[in-house]
Amino acid sequence: MASNSTSGKSTRSKKTVKNKATGVSRRSQHTQSSSTDRKQKLQENKLSVGEYLIQRLQDYGLKDLFGIPGDFILGFYGMLEESPIRVVGTTREDNAGYAADAYARINGLGAICVTYCVGGLSVTNSIAGAYAEKSPVIVITGAPGLKERASDPLLHHRVRDFSTQREVFEKITVASTSLEDPLTAFREIDRCLEAAVRYKRPVYIEIPRDQVDVVPDIPYQPHKSQVKSEPNALSEALKEAEELIKKASKPMIIAGVEVHRFGLHEQVVKLAEAHNIPICTTLLGKSAISEKHPLHIGVYEGAMGRAGVQEFVEESDLVIMIGTFMTDINLGIYTAHLDPGRCLYVTSEKLRMGYHHFHDVLLTDFINGLTKLKGSKKKRTIPAELKPKLKPYKLDADRKITVSRLFTRLNQQLADDTVVVADVGDSLFASADLTIYQHTEFLSPAYYTSMGFAIPAALGVQVANRELRPLVLVGDGAFQMTCNELATTLRYEFNPIVIVLNNKGYTTERFIQEGPFNDIPNWNYHRIPDLFGGGWGFEIHTEGDFEKALNASLGNEDAFSLLNVHLDPLDTSQALNRLAKRIGKGIVS
Amino acid sequence: MASNSTSGKSTRSKKTVKNKATGVSRRSQHTQSSSTDRKQKLQENKLSVGEYLIQRLQDYGLKDLFGIPGDFILGFYGMLEESPIRVVGTTREDNAGYAADAYARINGLGAICVTYCVGGLSVTNSIAGAYAEKSPVIVITGAPGLKERASDPLLHHRVRDFSTQREVFEKITVASTSLEDPLTAFREIDRCLEAAVRYKRPVYIEIPRDQVDVVPDIPYQPHKSQVKSEPNALSEALKEAEELIKKASKPMIIAGVEVHRFGLHEQVVKLAEAHNIPICTTLLGKSAISEKHPLHIGVYEGAMGRAGVQEFVEESDLVIMIGTFMTDINLGIYTAHLDPGRCLYVTSEKLRMGYHHFHDVLLTDFINGLTKLKGSKKKRTIPAELKPKLKPYKLDADRKITVSRLFTRLNQQLADDTVVVADVGDSLFASADLTIYQHTEFLSPAYYTSMGFAIPAALGVQVANRELRPLVLVGDGAFQMTCNELATTLRYEFNPIVIVLNNKGYTTERFIQEGPFNDIPNWNYHRIPDLFGGGWGFEIHTEGDFEKALNASLGNEDAFSLLNVHLDPLDTSQALNRLAKRIGKGIVS
Repeated sequence: MASNSTSGKSTRSKKTVKNKATGVSRRSQHTQSSSTDRKQKLQENKLSVGEYLIQRLQDYGLKDLFGIPGDFILGFYGMLEESPIRVVGTTREDNAGYAADAYARINGLGAICVTYCVGGLSVTNSIAGAYAEKSPVIVITGAPGLKERASDPLLHHRVRDFSTQREVFEKITVASTSLEDPLTAFREIDRCLEAAVRYKRPVYIEIPRDQVDVVPDIPYQPHKSQVKSEPNALSEALKEAEELIKKASKPMIIAGVEVHRFGLHEQVVKLAEAHNIPICTTLLGKSAISEKHPLHIGVYEGAMGRAGVQEFVEESDLVIMIGTFMTDINLGIYTAHLDPGRCLYVTSEKLRMGYHHFHDVLLTDFINGLTKLKGSKKKRTIPAELKPKLKPYKLDADRKITVSRLFTRLNQQLADDTVVVADVGDSLFASADLTIYQHTEFLSPAYYTSMGFAIPAALGVQVANRELRPLVLVGDGAFQMTCNELATTLRYEFNPIVIVLNNKGYTTERFIQEGPFNDIPNWNYHRIPDLFGGGWGFEIHTEGDFEKALNASLGNEDAFSLLNVHLDPLDTSQALNRLAKRIGKGIVS
Repeated sequence: MASNSTSGKSTRSKKTVKNKATGVSRRSQHTQSSSTDRKQKLQENKLSVGEYLIQRLQDYGLKDLFGIPGDFILGFYGMLEESPIRVVGTTREDNAGYAADAYARINGLGAICVTYCVGGLSVTNSIAGAYAEKSPVIVITGAPGLKERASDPLLHHRVRDFSTQREVFEKITVASTSLEDPLTAFREIDRCLEAAVRYKRPVYIEIPRDQVDVVPDIPYQPHKSQVKSEPNALSEALKEAEELIKKASKPMIIAGVEVHRFGLHEQVVKLAEAHNIPICTTLLGKSAISEKHPLHIGVYEGAMGRAGVQEFVEESDLVIMIGTFMTDINLGIYTAHLDPGRCLYVTSEKLRMGYHHFHDVLLTDFINGLTKLKGSKKKRTIPAELKPKLKPYKLDADRKITVSRLFTRLNQQLADDTVVVADVGDSLFASADLTIYQHTEFLSPAYYTSMGFAIPAALGVQVANRELRPLVLVGDGAFQMTCNELATTLRYEFNPIVIVLNNKGYTTERFIQEGPFNDIPNWNYHRIPDLFGGGWGFEIHTEGDFEKALNASLGNEDAFSLLNVHLDPLDTSQALNRLAKRIGKGIVS
């Protein structure tokens, strides 16, 4: 998690890297900069702008970042190389953005480091996704030096004005700065990093290349402003919440994405247990609470979810929605029906009970307050048929594999260390019915729904925690967008299991408007190891093929495994079928 | 070229496409909309917003566009499918942007069509490049319908506000609009398309999905505003130019990128021939004039170019710079030395002679005026050693191949139908010394220098003109970014020859700051046909390997050929060596 602890020296082994191409080891020539050294230099007003940024990233618990070098950021890359922060090179900048987003979801904070415009403008989509889904990613970018801008020259990578890139990022970040003045540089760095952690959204830090080594000769100490709840508002809100919970005979908790982002899962479970309140999650918040918990009844997503769950939630007399965003997909494309008069709705941005609002009450303070309320012995009975059940799966080796059977089989395989990473489309909808064991075990762009998230996200997961094993569910269209990043997993001996749901096109769209534009070429996805020079590939038609390949993949622990699963173009998950049946039209892609 | 001619029915065969996946032919169910039908409907105030846009795109000579469908743009995709405009699906949206940029460079206008945010924000980098290098690309994007925005809901793909995507594109386009009001929609479409053609820069047109079929029931006729030169300014400028040319004993023309974009190559050659003025081009403008012309002496790029050329240009007593942008790379990273007092500098944005400026003089009017001046018999002698010469190449089959020898060999192979498409880095620098036969035969992002341009650009070239054959020069780093698009060339049986300069990393950067971040994994690039299911691949170590593979590729006329050329990580072109020798440091990447 992001924290203010000073991690000091990294425990990772020293990063002496031998250049395979030139055969030269470089790391040995330099002394690695340590956190202690840097703090000493700060005391003596000898710390440079670049060094201060590295120090603060470490203070917030960042151990790795993603990116591609380029001349306007090369100086800072050199500096990073001397620091304990590991730089993970990706094949494309936008993939660095997805990887950093996933890393942030696991680690609490992520970062990318890219060059000016050709680098920065390549990550706008992945950073916009992180903004929309509340994932705190620091975007660090180089820029032309201030001195070389004097005569307003047409430097390469320049689009319109020198400020164009920053102006673009102002639209998709929660704070942004260009470190053009050494006197304010440290303060600006602090302001942006604080904003990222407080609002759980991306921020933008641009460093003109001649400012990286500048030492602002002024005394400065890192600071963190404290934001507090208005005490009277907090206490009135808690009192009213207590009354509501006391009065309710059919209460319900819906846990959303912010339960995960603000690290509130323990508190939410405590609250639920104290009052015996059943819990469900949203699709974006899936796995915020372990789905094995006895009070957990599944994912609430309107008509897209299981009918029993929708009914049970909507007949509640009190729905406590915690950190949930009312997005169209979370609401099953508006098939959800929740009466606001019976809702207690709290997020980091809003606290509403019925039709009145409380301002200046922090999410964390409010939830912590709720956990201290006296428990009750009332119990809302959860009907047995509502509890998610593992469907039995009896292998029929010669049977052509279907989406439904594939997910039934996978549901039996999920282990404690599995992280399900679902891409967009039916990969996401079908995954809703998987049973996730622990929190943070399900990653997906379930609101912004940007295709191509999953493969680079799987890289981000294992950079953050090598002990986790990604199970990637991805359609063929999404796979074609970002599959290149699988090559990077080989470099680090990561071992994601990638299941390509190969239905030869954009299947979800076929239900909205069919046309040849929904067909895509059919690659030999299982041959990708030949291109990358590593990993295993399997071509799958039947349940027997799948069984063998899945078992082999589980044993393949030091490289990726890829399963090219041939599916019928119109074969869809039960979730998508449910939705299609209920509303006929208007399914998202 | 973009023009206002009404092309009417397309000559392309009817686009009945059989869905390979579902086996259903769709085109046959519908009547294809023709330009004539649409014009009739416009007369009767029965034309919808979507239909009007399609009609105007056709009026401007657009026959194809690039993109990926998504639900917010699917309705318009359906409409495009019924029109004669061909939709070329790409694997990623940013690649659609590069392809449309290249298409615009060949055809005079290009377009992409993508969905809201996840689509649009994925093309910001390629569209920024088109802006920087003056390539007119129309960005068409879907958006949530106006009705569904009423309660400000969190619709999927939304970042911050519904206007966020448009606000981003305002920064990187020359005109932008969101068609939210049917009363102004037609006028807004005209305004944006005109701006694209006039300024040769990208524009942005957003269509809320419930506006595509709306018919604005008002009389409207397409119009085009006429921009004219101030006649007195024009005549004074021409008079002064005439004097300058008459007086000069050592004149010189530098032809830049706008000579190509504004279709002025014939006029420029005429001017040069009338006064016997030698011509060179810039790197970005390379091939604006056929390099076989007797007055052509090569590419002027400061110390990066051949020393003789730099000297010859810089000792001129009049340098007529036409449509040239003074970028850092065009100026050989500021190693060029041109005295403004001896320059006549004209672009679409500026007309300067010595230190004074003329306003309101159009580039085309001024150049047309210059061609009407009385010719002179003076002649500036071009030293024999200055003319670009084909170096002899004697095959040494067992010799390890080098960058220099590879380019010497390629220079002998360029034919009239070859389009050299050079990616960034040494692929670009080395290509400067290739001799290009015709204008528009050299395509490269020589100013914006965005890695990964070349492969999707090669697709764009052949969509625009199947008779051209792209010779793609691309480094391994750039190839990893966008190689997926080679798969799309298979779908259309295009036949680019792709030469991967495989030096295992970001070689240009090694000269600025070496570090492990410059190393990238070594893929088996020649195995890519196995993944895509088509094309030929060759692995090359020696000159003999290269010779055989090149000859085989030339005969492989219905699919791509890929040559994986193993190079030493520190092997560089003569151009890069020249620059390194002269300035030691500061080479761009």
